[in-house]
Amino acid sequence: MAESLYTSSAKVGLPPGAIVHVGDVHQAETRISLVDYGRDHTEERRLETLDDLIPYRERESVTWIIVEGLADAELVGRLGEFFAIHPLVVEDILNVHQRPKFEEHEQFLFIVLKSLIASGDGCRAEHEQVSIVLLENFVLVFKEKSDELLDPLIQRIRTSKGRLRSLGADYLAYAILDLIVDGFFCLVDSLDEAVNSLEDTLLTAEPTHDTLLALQRVKRELIHIRRYVAPIREVMAAMLRSESELIQEKTRIYLRDVSDHAIRVAESIDSFKDILASLMDIYVSSVSNRLNEVMKVLTIFASIFIPLTFLTGIYGMNFEYMPELKWKYAYFCLWGLFLVIPLALLRYFKKKKWL
Amino acid sequence: MAESLYTSSAKVGLPPGAIVHVGDVHQAETRISLVDYGRDHTEERRLETLDDLIPYRERESVTWIIVEGLADAELVGRLGEFFAIHPLVVEDILNVHQRPKFEEHEQFLFIVLKSLIASGDGCRAEHEQVSIVLLENFVLVFKEKSDELLDPLIQRIRTSKGRLRSLGADYLAYAILDLIVDGFFCLVDSLDEAVNSLEDTLLTAEPTHDTLLALQRVKRELIHIRRYVAPIREVMAAMLRSESELIQEKTRIYLRDVSDHAIRVAESIDSFKDILASLMDIYVSSVSNRLNEVMKVLTIFASIFIPLTFLTGIYGMNFEYMPELKWKYAYFCLWGLFLVIPLALLRYFKKKKWL
Amino acid sequence: MAESLYTSSAKVGLPPGAIVHVGDVHQAETRISLVDYGRDHTEERRLETLDDLIPYRERESVTWIIVEGLADAELVGRLGEFFAIHPLVVEDILNVHQRPKFEEHEQFLFIVLKSLIASGDGCRAEHEQVSIVLLENFVLVFKEKSDELLDPLIQRIRTSKGRLRSLGADYLAYAILDLIVDGFFCLVDSLDEAVNSLEDTLLTAEPTHDTLLALQRVKRELIHIRRYVAPIREVMAAMLRSESELIQEKTRIYLRDVSDHAIRVAESIDSFKDILASLMDIYVSSVSNRLNEVMKVLTIFASIFIPLTFLTGIYGMNFEYMPELKWKYAYFCLWGLFLVIPLALLRYFKKKKWL
Amino acid sequence: MAESLYTSSAKVGLPPGAIVHVGDVHQAETRISLVDYGRDHTEERRLETLDDLIPYRERESVTWIIVEGLADAELVGRLGEFFAIHPLVVEDILNVHQRPKFEEHEQFLFIVLKSLIASGDGCRAEHEQVSIVLLENFVLVFKEKSDELLDPLIQRIRTSKGRLRSLGADYLAYAILDLIVDGFFCLVDSLDEAVNSLEDTLLTAEPTHDTLLALQRVKRELIHIRRYVAPIREVMAAMLRSESELIQEKTRIYLRDVSDHAIRVAESIDSFKDILASLMDIYVSSVSNRLNEVMKVLTIFASIFIPLTFLTGIYGMNFEYMPELKWKYAYFCLWGLFLVIPLALLRYFKKKKWL
Amino acid sequence: MAESLYTSSAKVGLPPGAIVHVGDVHQAETRISLVDYGRDHTEERRLETLDDLIPYRERESVTWIIVEGLADAELVGRLGEFFAIHPLVVEDILNVHQRPKFEEHEQFLFIVLKSLIASGDGCRAEHEQVSIVLLENFVLVFKEKSDELLDPLIQRIRTSKGRLRSLGADYLAYAILDLIVDGFFCLVDSLDEAVNSLEDTLLTAEPTHDTLLALQRVKRELIHIRRYVAPIREVMAAMLRSESELIQEKTRIYLRDVSDHAIRVAESIDSFKDILASLMDIYVSSVSNRLNEVMKVLTIFASIFIPLTFLTGIYGMNFEYMPELKWKYAYFCLWGLFLVIPLALLRYFKKKKWL
Repeated sequence: MAESLYTSSAKVGLPPGAIVHVGDVHQAETRISLVDYGRDHTEERRLETLDDLIPYRERESVTWIIVEGLADAELVGRLGEFFAIHPLVVEDILNVHQRPKFEEHEQFLFIVLKSLIASGDGCRAEHEQVSIVLLENFVLVFKEKSDELLDPLIQRIRTSKGRLRSLGADYLAYAILDLIVDGFFCLVDSLDEAVNSLEDTLLTAEPTHDTLLALQRVKRELIHIRRYVAPIREVMAAMLRSESELIQEKTRIYLRDVSDHAIRVAESIDSFKDILASLMDIYVSSVSNRLNEVMKVLTIFASIFIPLTFLTGIYGMNFEYMPELKWKYAYFCLWGLFLVIPLALLRYFKKKKWL
Repeated sequence: MAESLYTSSAKVGLPPGAIVHVGDVHQAETRISLVDYGRDHTEERRLETLDDLIPYRERESVTWIIVEGLADAELVGRLGEFFAIHPLVVEDILNVHQRPKFEEHEQFLFIVLKSLIASGDGCRAEHEQVSIVLLENFVLVFKEKSDELLDPLIQRIRTSKGRLRSLGADYLAYAILDLIVDGFFCLVDSLDEAVNSLEDTLLTAEPTHDTLLALQRVKRELIHIRRYVAPIREVMAAMLRSESELIQEKTRIYLRDVSDHAIRVAESIDSFKDILASLMDIYVSSVSNRLNEVMKVLTIFASIFIPLTFLTGIYGMNFEYMPELKWKYAYFCLWGLFLVIPLALLRYFKKKKWL
Repeated sequence: MAESLYTSSAKVGLPPGAIVHVGDVHQAETRISLVDYGRDHTEERRLETLDDLIPYRERESVTWIIVEGLADAELVGRLGEFFAIHPLVVEDILNVHQRPKFEEHEQFLFIVLKSLIASGDGCRAEHEQVSIVLLENFVLVFKEKSDELLDPLIQRIRTSKGRLRSLGADYLAYAILDLIVDGFFCLVDSLDEAVNSLEDTLLTAEPTHDTLLALQRVKRELIHIRRYVAPIREVMAAMLRSESELIQEKTRIYLRDVSDHAIRVAESIDSFKDILASLMDIYVSSVSNRLNEVMKVLTIFASIFIPLTFLTGIYGMNFEYMPELKWKYAYFCLWGLFLVIPLALLRYFKKKKWL
Repeated sequence: MAESLYTSSAKVGLPPGAIVHVGDVHQAETRISLVDYGRDHTEERRLETLDDLIPYRERESVTWIIVEGLADAELVGRLGEFFAIHPLVVEDILNVHQRPKFEEHEQFLFIVLKSLIASGDGCRAEHEQVSIVLLENFVLVFKEKSDELLDPLIQRIRTSKGRLRSLGADYLAYAILDLIVDGFFCLVDSLDEAVNSLEDTLLTAEPTHDTLLALQRVKRELIHIRRYVAPIREVMAAMLRSESELIQEKTRIYLRDVSDHAIRVAESIDSFKDILASLMDIYVSSVSNRLNEVMKVLTIFASIFIPLTFLTGIYGMNFEYMPELKWKYAYFCLWGLFLVIPLALLRYFKKKKWL
Repeated sequence: MAESLYTSSAKVGLPPGAIVHVGDVHQAETRISLVDYGRDHTEERRLETLDDLIPYRERESVTWIIVEGLADAELVGRLGEFFAIHPLVVEDILNVHQRPKFEEHEQFLFIVLKSLIASGDGCRAEHEQVSIVLLENFVLVFKEKSDELLDPLIQRIRTSKGRLRSLGADYLAYAILDLIVDGFFCLVDSLDEAVNSLEDTLLTAEPTHDTLLALQRVKRELIHIRRYVAPIREVMAAMLRSESELIQEKTRIYLRDVSDHAIRVAESIDSFKDILASLMDIYVSSVSNRLNEVMKVLTIFASIFIPLTFLTGIYGMNFEYMPELKWKYAYFCLWGLFLVIPLALLRYFKKKKWL
């Protein structure tokens, strides 16, 4: 069954800014955790009520709030209110059918991306929408479910004493973007493998209907992924152009790096598209070639035996007056013909390079 | 019968700004209703004469005038005059073959869109041209016919005490645009379903000529829809760029939201186009594959039986001197050949993977 | 015979600005008429000598000069000199292989378009180059031949007392452009009909080689027309951008209207191109489908009768020792086989959906 | 043998600005001629040494230096030094694999074009690189060989007393550009003829393998030409944008004219590309159609005669007990079948429109 | 085995700016050499420790540092620190999967390119990433391995007393870029040869499955190369736009020259793509044509002999009452038919141009 590209008519008719979750519910609970860190301390805790957040507002340190699971729309809505986030942004966070985008608001920056989480066995593609809200000293991340996507980053905050701990919230936002875009390279690698294996099948072995199905599966996956990856280039370009004070000058070079990565991923995917198109051409040619093969076999068999059968037909007639029938060597002469005709035809076909 | 893409030569030769209705007449009567609302009141009435409008001109509240049915061109013309709308704009309102567009005039903004009305059974596509004229404190909406397109909005004005009631005419215009663009998601969903069902047919079942017809129907529908949807992106971008005082600063973020939705719809439709192209490729390949199948069956039958028939032909000849005929075991030996030759050929075909 | 897209090497080697007519001569004579009008008067006359023009120079009224037939290059040249038109512009007027363009000169504006004249039977496509020179109070129109293209406009000048009579030369130029662009809608309608009829043929009836020829004819016509229509968008955009004082502010809204029309025509033609491409796909698929049909019939006939013929061949052999020949029921048993084998094969083909 | 698109690795490894000729040597000798003219005089001479040039430097008149043949790289290098032309420009002049381009230097303008020289029999395509250096009062033209390309211009200088003689060096440069671009129209005409003749063959006659080869030849020629023609648009646009004082205001209108011509040529070539693509489609369809024809003939013959042969086979069997054999009218009845079966099948095929 | 387009998931999860080598290790050792030169001296040495670099910092002369082999990431990292190069740039240098790019930093310019090294036998394509860091008086070049890529340049520094020795570090950077881009012309030439040889095969000889494989190989190589070449245009354009003081005014004209070369290479590759697409079309047509040939042979054989065999079948029947059997000339008359029918059919096929 083909996966649906788009399903979001569910919300049609609701007033704009409605705080309703749109999308599959991956987990019933909405879990909020908090990571607070500065040059000299880190603190991790799970938030039970939003009131727990109040003390962090005063602090200078960077506070990272991770919201996992979007089913509890009301809780997300209150969190949005707490940080004075525009209702339309909260609506976008809750609707997991967003196109990747970057929005610059007065008090905060809003980024939506699709992440590809490498789960368990390496590079399996599992889409998840990740929304990032960057405020002064706060980074809010909204995810569809609890998974290990951000674990490497939390780990780095815990252990490292380097750049990450000493730079501000904008650097944290960058680090999240970098993690997500790096995740795409996994997908690119697995697509690369799939395309190469298809090419090997098409060029060396006989392609079958299954090859066609595999081609179509990869093609469709590409169309799917391109919708998520292509806009990231614009997102990064818009961030680089942004003159918001929330992004410090020294973070820009890092954003440019993520931007380069996004372009590389997008170009790889475009290359795959070109390659798949030429593989499809080869598939079609192979099918035609095989038809040619089949028809040559038929033609050779038919062209050789049909005239011979005609000859046997002649001498199977029952006319009273057929002089050859009585000639003693007629039968052997005919056998001569039975040998000469096929040989002549085979030579003719050989000359035509059908053999 | 294919639907006509374009028929508007009817008006050729008329002077510009001619107040004539161009398009199918969906209803004979032109019905004008009025919704007037402010933070604390709402009023709904049907207008009998244009004079009824005069008192609303003085008021501060938002007055929404809905014109349903465009057959009475003269009435629409007078309404235009009442609000000092340029005759060319009135002409555009009356001609239902407009391309979606946004025009900025000194006293008003003019927006034309094509709406897709979800009627009765969910997502049936019925096109209707909706023209919106935004003046200070007034919003004029011109529709081809009376339907429930705007009902959710009127309902919200009646019941809500929220944003919609407290914000100005520009927010109302936004709400109308949002309603129309949201309606496209319905169409996208139904197209998505159609494309997925086509893909399943093509990949699992044997595609028939009907599959081709269905493909072509969806393709044509896509070409049709793209003409209406693609320009909406430009319309929204032009509105966002507009510096008209009729659009307040705080409404812009809502317009940007509609703009995002329009881009998402347009990108979905482009994805469908790509997918349809690859489905067409698969259809063509499937037809070729089936021809291969047919030819293999023919070739196998012919290649096996034509040589055997030749053999029977030989011993059906009536030569007087054919020594084998008299040999007692000849017939049985021949039967041996009749078994060995097919088996050898079948093995050969198996090796060629034709079986 | 395919129509030539381009023939203009005739002038190669001549100095630039050479006053020579390039193109087919549609009529030997070059006829100059004049329409002079103001709010309160209209005057129509045929010009015999250019001296007749002198008095109109002084007047405030709008003077429209229509030159029909370009064979008398020398006369056109003198007219150009009279109005101080740059020789290169005169050269462009005389060369009927121009690309539609807009040029802004200090004293005048120059517009070249290709018109499609709806002659006699409705919408027959006949191309004609129309050059418009807009000066202060003067509009010069140069046409390849005398026809009724501009008649509706002259009629409107004669009868109306409205906008056309009271506004200036720029409005007249607009009215001419509007007339020409409106003419394209005729062509779009007739193309629409042709495309729809082709689609019906392809989807319902069996397409033949004639369908292919018709497809190619329409495709070629589209390529042809697009060359004339596509640049009109740029022409109109350039006019709208122009800051020439020859175009009054209040005329701009009218020009924008023509521009919208030109975009609509161009988009229709692009849609046709997409539709034709998909019709070509269907044609190719239909041919393949039919080949499949033919091959199935052959395969079914051959697969059924070739084995049966082999069986008859066996018992037509003349071996002395063939025990079955003597068995009384052998013949009837064989008839049993003659019925069972075809039925089994037919069932097999039915299962394969070949029947 | 296909012509090589590109061969310029010859110079790889040499230092930049190396004064070496790259390209085929068309003539061993490098010939320098000079045409000096003003409003009242013209002078033509052949230069023996560069010292002959010194007096012209002081004069106000326009001096046109034509260098034919680039084999003597050292001489070209010294000429470049004489006029203080940057070594990289001299290198570009000597390397005949340039892409058409326009460069603005402080003391001079540099233009490289590919010319198509109409030699002897009208429109034969012979490529030649023409480099133009425009200095104050000097125009230097570098050509690969001596031919009559510039003769019409020299002739006009000799005879005319008009614009060419009275305007400056920039007008001369324009006249050369105009001559070269006009030359492309020849090529467009001959391509037009080739394309039309191909279309006629494809639509009326049976296309053969030769038609395919001809299609490919024209297609390749188009790809070739487009590489030379397409950049000329940019060249002309860059010249029009240039604010160099070497181009006078009144010459710009002429350059715009050349620019229009270049756009027309490029658009024609794009049209040809579209047409060729659709001709290729028709070729492929024709081949498929013919295969259909062939298969129909085979199927009709086989379907009719294979069942009949089966019938004859039955009554050619040698069973002892075959009652029909003894019935007197059996043979005639069978003949009836021999007539009825083909007629029924022919009718069936006719209904299927195979006949 | 198809070459992998992309493999860089190796670094996913590492913190940004991590000093780790990503890519195949071509050589274990990282070798640093130094070329220091001015107008009057050159010095070449191999660096053992980074301390050796200190004296060169003070000098006015140009110091060129060549790093060959990137396996010793730590050494590269220290070199970067020595010159105060941003860690992200060092990371890019060490990751050999970069997209060609140009970055402008405050203290230095950073350029990454893919080089094609012409090794041994002329034009063999071997990709290598070359990173160039341009500082004041210093040029750092990082290469994946030790090869002769830069030898011509070192040679020129040693021997020449010209431009290269007297101009600054920016000219050296230009010379390196020029060398790399010139190297692409080699590749273009060898692709040109490959494409031409394919075209010859396709147009004159019978294309086989191997031709298809060769086509696909070249196509894939093109996609591969385009990824490296296309961005070089942007790199050069960005360098030309850059206002960095590290690039002197007089070097810009040289950069423009490299830019022109890059555009030429990219356009050649685009042309190849067009040509390959049309060769693929020809391949497909050839396969179809050959199928036609095969089917014609089959049809001619079958159409001639099947009716004749039917005739022999008739007179091989054993009916008791078959009057013709007894007629003396029947057999000879039948022979007449055996000659007349094939001749008539051959004539028919000849008329159809099947022979």
